[in-house]
Amino acid sequence: MGWHTVMEFTPSLVGCVIAGGNHSFRMIRNSGECVINLPTTRLTSAVVAIGNSSGAEIDKFREFGLTADDAEKVAAPLIRECHASFECRLHDDALVDRYNFFIFEVAKAHVAASPKHPETLHYTGDGVFMVSGKIISCRAQFRPEIL
Amino acid sequence: MGWHTVMEFTPSLVGCVIAGGNHSFRMIRNSGECVINLPTTRLTSAVVAIGNSSGAEIDKFREFGLTADDAEKVAAPLIRECHASFECRLHDDALVDRYNFFIFEVAKAHVAASPKHPETLHYTGDGVFMVSGKIISCRAQFRPEIL
Repeated sequence: MGWHTVMEFTPSLVGCVIAGGNHSFRMIRNSGECVINLPTTRLTSAVVAIGNSSGAEIDKFREFGLTADDAEKVAAPLIRECHASFECRLHDDALVDRYNFFIFEVAKAHVAASPKHPETLHYTGDGVFMVSGKIISCRAQFRPEIL
Repeated sequence: MGWHTVMEFTPSLVGCVIAGGNHSFRMIRNSGECVINLPTTRLTSAVVAIGNSSGAEIDKFREFGLTADDAEKVAAPLIRECHASFECRLHDDALVDRYNFFIFEVAKAHVAASPKHPETLHYTGDGVFMVSGKIISCRAQFRPEIL
C-alpha cells in the first residue's frame, strides 16, 4: 500500500493508493477484498523486508515469521502479530483506473485491547519513518458537537 | 478539513475530505482553489479554536493572531505562522458529490528550512492529538529502487 485515508465513519470507508505493478493490486482487483494490518515498531524490520519483496515470488508469512489468522468476513488472512487488522471489501472502484485509488468498506475491525496508544510507523519517504509520539488531549477545549 | 492523503508524486496530488456543511467546502467549491497549511504544536490552541469556529461568522486570521501572506498561484492566502503551506488547485471533483472528497494539485509548496522534523499534530478523534515522535531511518535496508 502506498498512501491511505479514512473517508467516512458510517459506513466505515478507507481510501488507499496501491501501485499498479504490485502483486497486492492484482489480488485486490480480482477478489475485491483485502485485510489492512497495522504494525508497530516491534515489526519495523519485517515491514521494510515486506516492502522490499513481492508476494508473487515468496510466501511473506513464512519468510518473515508472521502468522496468518482467519478473517470473519473476507477470504484474505489477518496478520496475528499486528496491533490491528481491518477486514475490507471493495466499496467503490471509480478512481482505480485513474489513480490506483481503492475505496474500501471496513466490514470488521480487530484491535488489541492494549496498549491504547501503540508505537506506530509513519513512512515519510526516503527510507525514513516517523514513530508516533506523545498524546495530548484538548478535549476540554473542543465544542462538544464537533468531537 | 477532515481527512487527507497524498495520491501521486507527479503531478503532486492530495485528496481531502471536507465536510459539506463547512464554510471551506463552499469556498473551495466556488473558487476551485485553496491553501493547505501545516501547523505545529506551537499552534495547538489556535488549531482547536479554528476547528471550533466558522469563517462564515468571524475573521479567523484576526481572531487567532495569524498573518495572511499572498500566495503565488492562487487567490487564497497562506498562513505565515505555519511550518508549510501548499497552494492547491482543484484537479478532479469526481468524488466531491459522493464523499466530499476533493483531489487537489499542489501548484506551489512553501516549507520552512528548519526544523527538518517539526512537531506536527495528528488528530485521532475525541479531542486527542498524537504528536509526531522520533525519526528512524531504515534507508540502508531498503532496496534502492523502491526509495
